[in-house]
Amino acid sequence: MNILLINGPNINFLGIREPGIYGARSYSELIALVQEEGKRLKVAVDCFQSNCEGEIVDAIQNAYGRYDGIIINPAAYTHYSIAIYDALKAIPIPAIEVHISNTHAREEFRHRSVTAPACVGQIMGLGFKGYVMALMALVDMNCETNNKG
Amino acid sequence: MNILLINGPNINFLGIREPGIYGARSYSELIALVQEEGKRLKVAVDCFQSNCEGEIVDAIQNAYGRYDGIIINPAAYTHYSIAIYDALKAIPIPAIEVHISNTHAREEFRHRSVTAPACVGQIMGLGFKGYVMALMALVDMNCETNNKG
Amino acid sequence: MNILLINGPNINFLGIREPGIYGARSYSELIALVQEEGKRLKVAVDCFQSNCEGEIVDAIQNAYGRYDGIIINPAAYTHYSIAIYDALKAIPIPAIEVHISNTHAREEFRHRSVTAPACVGQIMGLGFKGYVMALMALVDMNCETNNKG
Amino acid sequence: MNILLINGPNINFLGIREPGIYGARSYSELIALVQEEGKRLKVAVDCFQSNCEGEIVDAIQNAYGRYDGIIINPAAYTHYSIAIYDALKAIPIPAIEVHISNTHAREEFRHRSVTAPACVGQIMGLGFKGYVMALMALVDMNCETNNKG
Amino acid sequence: MNILLINGPNINFLGIREPGIYGARSYSELIALVQEEGKRLKVAVDCFQSNCEGEIVDAIQNAYGRYDGIIINPAAYTHYSIAIYDALKAIPIPAIEVHISNTHAREEFRHRSVTAPACVGQIMGLGFKGYVMALMALVDMNCETNNKG
Amino acid sequence: MNILLINGPNINFLGIREPGIYGARSYSELIALVQEEGKRLKVAVDCFQSNCEGEIVDAIQNAYGRYDGIIINPAAYTHYSIAIYDALKAIPIPAIEVHISNTHAREEFRHRSVTAPACVGQIMGLGFKGYVMALMALVDMNCETNNKG
Amino acid sequence: MNILLINGPNINFLGIREPGIYGARSYSELIALVQEEGKRLKVAVDCFQSNCEGEIVDAIQNAYGRYDGIIINPAAYTHYSIAIYDALKAIPIPAIEVHISNTHAREEFRHRSVTAPACVGQIMGLGFKGYVMALMALVDMNCETNNKG
Amino acid sequence: MNILLINGPNINFLGIREPGIYGARSYSELIALVQEEGKRLKVAVDCFQSNCEGEIVDAIQNAYGRYDGIIINPAAYTHYSIAIYDALKAIPIPAIEVHISNTHAREEFRHRSVTAPACVGQIMGLGFKGYVMALMALVDMNCETNNKG
Amino acid sequence: MNILLINGPNINFLGIREPGIYGARSYSELIALVQEEGKRLKVAVDCFQSNCEGEIVDAIQNAYGRYDGIIINPAAYTHYSIAIYDALKAIPIPAIEVHISNTHAREEFRHRSVTAPACVGQIMGLGFKGYVMALMALVDMNCETNNKG
Amino acid sequence: MNILLINGPNINFLGIREPGIYGARSYSELIALVQEEGKRLKVAVDCFQSNCEGEIVDAIQNAYGRYDGIIINPAAYTHYSIAIYDALKAIPIPAIEVHISNTHAREEFRHRSVTAPACVGQIMGLGFKGYVMALMALVDMNCETNNKG
Amino acid sequence: MNILLINGPNINFLGIREPGIYGARSYSELIALVQEEGKRLKVAVDCFQSNCEGEIVDAIQNAYGRYDGIIINPAAYTHYSIAIYDALKAIPIPAIEVHISNTHAREEFRHRSVTAPACVGQIMGLGFKGYVMALMALVDMNCETNNKG
Amino acid sequence: MNILLINGPNINFLGIREPGIYGARSYSELIALVQEEGKRLKVAVDCFQSNCEGEIVDAIQNAYGRYDGIIINPAAYTHYSIAIYDALKAIPIPAIEVHISNTHAREEFRHRSVTAPACVGQIMGLGFKGYVMALMALVDMNCETNNKG
Repeated sequence: MNILLINGPNINFLGIREPGIYGARSYSELIALVQEEGKRLKVAVDCFQSNCEGEIVDAIQNAYGRYDGIIINPAAYTHYSIAIYDALKAIPIPAIEVHISNTHAREEFRHRSVTAPACVGQIMGLGFKGYVMALMALVDMNCETNNKG
Repeated sequence: MNILLINGPNINFLGIREPGIYGARSYSELIALVQEEGKRLKVAVDCFQSNCEGEIVDAIQNAYGRYDGIIINPAAYTHYSIAIYDALKAIPIPAIEVHISNTHAREEFRHRSVTAPACVGQIMGLGFKGYVMALMALVDMNCETNNKG
Repeated sequence: MNILLINGPNINFLGIREPGIYGARSYSELIALVQEEGKRLKVAVDCFQSNCEGEIVDAIQNAYGRYDGIIINPAAYTHYSIAIYDALKAIPIPAIEVHISNTHAREEFRHRSVTAPACVGQIMGLGFKGYVMALMALVDMNCETNNKG
Repeated sequence: MNILLINGPNINFLGIREPGIYGARSYSELIALVQEEGKRLKVAVDCFQSNCEGEIVDAIQNAYGRYDGIIINPAAYTHYSIAIYDALKAIPIPAIEVHISNTHAREEFRHRSVTAPACVGQIMGLGFKGYVMALMALVDMNCETNNKG
Repeated sequence: MNILLINGPNINFLGIREPGIYGARSYSELIALVQEEGKRLKVAVDCFQSNCEGEIVDAIQNAYGRYDGIIINPAAYTHYSIAIYDALKAIPIPAIEVHISNTHAREEFRHRSVTAPACVGQIMGLGFKGYVMALMALVDMNCETNNKG
Repeated sequence: MNILLINGPNINFLGIREPGIYGARSYSELIALVQEEGKRLKVAVDCFQSNCEGEIVDAIQNAYGRYDGIIINPAAYTHYSIAIYDALKAIPIPAIEVHISNTHAREEFRHRSVTAPACVGQIMGLGFKGYVMALMALVDMNCETNNKG
Repeated sequence: MNILLINGPNINFLGIREPGIYGARSYSELIALVQEEGKRLKVAVDCFQSNCEGEIVDAIQNAYGRYDGIIINPAAYTHYSIAIYDALKAIPIPAIEVHISNTHAREEFRHRSVTAPACVGQIMGLGFKGYVMALMALVDMNCETNNKG
Repeated sequence: MNILLINGPNINFLGIREPGIYGARSYSELIALVQEEGKRLKVAVDCFQSNCEGEIVDAIQNAYGRYDGIIINPAAYTHYSIAIYDALKAIPIPAIEVHISNTHAREEFRHRSVTAPACVGQIMGLGFKGYVMALMALVDMNCETNNKG
Repeated sequence: MNILLINGPNINFLGIREPGIYGARSYSELIALVQEEGKRLKVAVDCFQSNCEGEIVDAIQNAYGRYDGIIINPAAYTHYSIAIYDALKAIPIPAIEVHISNTHAREEFRHRSVTAPACVGQIMGLGFKGYVMALMALVDMNCETNNKG
Repeated sequence: MNILLINGPNINFLGIREPGIYGARSYSELIALVQEEGKRLKVAVDCFQSNCEGEIVDAIQNAYGRYDGIIINPAAYTHYSIAIYDALKAIPIPAIEVHISNTHAREEFRHRSVTAPACVGQIMGLGFKGYVMALMALVDMNCETNNKG
Repeated sequence: MNILLINGPNINFLGIREPGIYGARSYSELIALVQEEGKRLKVAVDCFQSNCEGEIVDAIQNAYGRYDGIIINPAAYTHYSIAIYDALKAIPIPAIEVHISNTHAREEFRHRSVTAPACVGQIMGLGFKGYVMALMALVDMNCETNNKG
Repeated sequence: MNILLINGPNINFLGIREPGIYGARSYSELIALVQEEGKRLKVAVDCFQSNCEGEIVDAIQNAYGRYDGIIINPAAYTHYSIAIYDALKAIPIPAIEVHISNTHAREEFRHRSVTAPACVGQIMGLGFKGYVMALMALVDMNCETNNKG
């Protein structure tokens, strides 16, 4: 099983970026954590980060035929990127949206997710742990599908 | 470690209620699943369900001094119950909001969560699995807090 | 054929409550009128009133497997109770929403019905007569269904 | 007693028009049904249909001094015709608004009725039966008024 | 003269609940203070608290014929309970709405009071003192009414 | 100089229609008054009334090349007829909008005029006198234009 | 008969101020025109202009017991001065609101009049002529009142 | 193949009406152009124009069973006529909406099309050419349907 | 202890101004009542009234260093004066906002208070009594502060 | 004559992407179709597709001095890209906006076009045919311009 | 060259007023700083401050014919004073709006500037320095104009 | 001291792009002007322009640890780029937002700045001069910080 992890703008600045909100751990620590969990669950996890909306759309399209699930934190683009929403709708791969912080407890404009309706579900406010859980959930779904098949 | 699971209105009708959205498994299957996971993680999980906003507020208040974490699916009340929001704010116990379906992909009025800002985080769209994940996340947080203490 | 009549908050104060809007007849007169019509139509009508949103949800759930139709005046809850809406959606029993007054001719906030989309139809502004008509309509529907069956 | 039945735009296309919403019976079947009920209740019912807002206003004005009650389904004009609202307000004849479908369960723009505040009441979602009920209600009101007089 | 004091959801958690906003004194201290003032003014004050919207409606209805005035802090329900608004409108007893904190200086959703239009007046931001003042005002009104009578 | 007076829906029911708002005088009295003033000012005034939006558009178009000014009371259509707005914009004849009542002091939906931006000006709340004034103003404008020419 | 003419902010800059909108004639020409008309109609007209909202409120209050009618162009304050609205409501003197330009054909924020609901009527877009007409209308009303008395 | 071309209010004033927006060519030139193209494509094109919303609804209904496609420019009614929207939905004939000008580049109220969702597509801003293209598109669709059949 | 009482526009017209809303007693009676209460409580009360927003700002600024508390009824300015809000924020003196009528039960635009967030609290709907209560509350606060000091 | 065709995000996934909405034909089939039509009309058509908003802005800028017309389907960016709007405004080349589906019949957020006001016109809902028509329209405009020159 | 500096409400309380936002320096320090810069640039700077909207309008009008530029900080009036906007539009003198704090980073109601559209430009968030820069910019503009002349 | 100047989409088309709004001078003239001022102030200024939101986020991140201040004109992205807002918040470097034109005097959608709350301040409407002033302001701030250190 292959999983693609996509992180959006400014996630590469974890540790530097508003640590009161996003925590003190860095982006590479996040990747290490997710990779480790991937090993434990015996799934390959490829990680991608970009500040560019178009490159995130590219990455989602490239997942087509290559991955069995997507974990995506669209970061700022969550709140306005119809392009990412359209890309997720365009391909038949289950995606889970993750947010490190609880966006409902922050600025009004972060309460709306434009991209979530194109995902299976959403996990927010649980820090790095949310990514690990998304991974577990995708593996679970995959098992259920295979068992049915 | 003691966890309180609170389910809001119509969750007791799982299996009967719109199975295309909420699935075919019943409320008692949900409870069994969560209890089982509780045993695996060595935490006691008490389960409460009510259709009444006021009783949910009572349950949250009763958690004070008795539980170390709350898992709450406020169901319909998610979208308008300031009383539940206030109750969650009133007590210093971490809570995680869970939704079985992906509310962002449903009616407009389900996109707003009034109660989520009073929680640590939110998990939605992952079915019964979301409850299990919330349990794991609360246990994790508890460990981290104890380790720091 | 069994019908459940559910009246929401402050309907028990008919006769006392703003008689210029709701008329001078009491809640028990309403019940008597509907029961009498029930006898004429040879259907059993059980009547329930509560000021509590949660108890109304309970009553709707309890109708499941016991009644063939619901007449509901959710009163104030008409305008905000997603919990009642969800309960009506959760069970496969036809419901008709009734309002004694013409809510469209009153305060702005009474123009919106949150619960009506989960009902078959709505009758408003015809006083107690509206309940009698709802009863007739449910009996009619039942006949049609039986004739087809 | 004389009743005027006014049907608005596209009601003449019943049977052809979106039968999943409006049913398979035609406009002439509707008229026959209402006329028959009129006979049963010993009231004369005149029927008028127009696609033109202005002709509906004309019809309402012409009712002045000729009819004792109006049954009106303003159809699409329900949602924006202040002219029809004004006409109904201009004459002292009780009117009941009828809709075949449950407009609350359809597009957002059908949830608001501009014309209902000028009517005694409203019946919706009960199909052709709603017209029959409106007729009964007007006869009832007339009796009450006469009894008082 | 008999006064009914009604406190809404989470007011029973005073002292525990966000003390930076609501102060450190408990609900029983509040009751003691109001009772004491009642004695000073020679009026009987009965105190009721509930987290349940429906029970607050019940309490208002029960006041009918038993009390000469109502002091009510609907707490969270202030901002959405049309049921409580309707109950206050249903009975001819003067009511004064009290809030411990200045809700205008808090979250946007606390700026609107759905229930205040059904009251004589409103006192907010003056802490427990606000309840005492409401009591004084009701006694004053009662005197004026009696003097006129 | 030729003036066209256009009155919209329900203006033909003056005297019958809500006399508390529109006064007790009839439509024919209005016409007589305006005609009389026309004679005094030595201008020919043609009067047209219709309940139909399309016929009002027709009338405005027919004014092209025949009249030197238009007095228009679009009545209910004031608030939503873009068709009338477009017609007034389509022809190079000065128009003055008149309302018998002060629409700013009535229902919210009467505060907006869709048609006024296509007119030279607007007179409201001065009863039948407003029509007379509009006539005087058009004659004045005509004189000024001629004097300049 | 005594009339008070009140002009609001920047009206004293007529002739200088955006002549494309307000015309080339000055404030003193406006006053001369109105005074002349006053003489013709045998009414005394006092003229007042201020850029200060509070002084306009003062002027309205000072009219109490001294004048039989008010002509007011609140200029910019038209769109937000509840204080002027309240002042006009506070005294039993008929007022007519005048605007030189057609505010409906200008910026969105000029379409709403906060002050008009407290006036008898409104005249706009007819230039200086609008003031003369307001004067005529007030004299007319006065005659009618006297004739009835 | 038979096509019905429907033009809404004020389209008959092309050439006179705001030529800066709609161009200098007249309505009869438009008809000639479309008829000529019809001949070239070997389809009969009937042309209808009305300023009356109701007559446009009539025309759409009359197309039923007589025409294979509709080209419609609802003009002003585009932005509010639910009656025309309902009529287009009522009959199974493909319709294409055409606008001479680019309504997105004009007043805010012209940005919304109420009627377009009931059409196959929309062409705007291309002047008279847009009608010709709509004709070509309908012919194309017809060919595809026939080829499939 | 020194208290400044500030009354906004039209409060000086109490007794004349809409007595159905504001009562029959005059502004000087209000002042006398408050002064009397001041004597009873042994605090000096200076009274200021202005119709001018800027003078109210001046008065608030002048309170700096001279008064221990402010009672303010900003009247119409309550609903839009950010200048008064800023002035109250600019100085460290506790202020209580008073309204004679229950503004929540009046026009929509009176439901919002722009100035209240800069005050300690608000009292409304209790007539002149509200001012007396505000005085008592300020004295109370002062005592508490002194006792703590 | 040289034309630039710009397709926005996810258009490269035609055939894969929601075929119920966008059809079964691929992006390369689209390009082939447009190129073929280009040959027929004797114009060179260059085709560009990008998922990146910035690259689309670059492409528009690069058209400056090189192309005589632009056909653009901004896809998701249609609804929020002010950057693309600004780019189209920045260069004096006529552009036509094309959409494959009828966006008015889809989600609410697709009803608004941010980019269309910077274009000459818009064609939507006609599938691939819309591109061909845009090409024809640009050629037509070019001929007209040349004929006038 | 003569410059008029206008400061609005509460700017005279700099140093006292919320120093965390506005800084610790006083209004007279601000004036000294600007005057000093004026000397350096060889322009006369007159300074005016008022809490009264009307006096600020007066000051702007008085600038007519006397000054070559205006620096204005309308403070609270920025967000609602159409009167000041109109005054700035009324006179042909370039004005620059200055704000000490970054109003975009503060309360929602400070994000909108009603007065800025009547100015040449706006400088905010740069403290007292912003005034100095506005002075420099006006001098620059003046030079450019003179050089062109 | 090192400063990074970031210009957003279409700023590279200065001189070509709507010269009536942005002036006739080119982007390279802008850069030359800023560099020259940099030399005068003895600060190094690096200049970056991109049409791509993601590259602007990259540039802001790259400034971390390399520059002492940022001057940014996000152009179109000003009004919707939460990604740029987040990037500016992520790094502890003072930024000043610059706009060449006065966006408050243009389209409604340009009145809101999403990015400004993450900046120290904003300068708009002063043309190229605004960039020079931003540079001066950053140098000033740097001096103050150093003097305090």
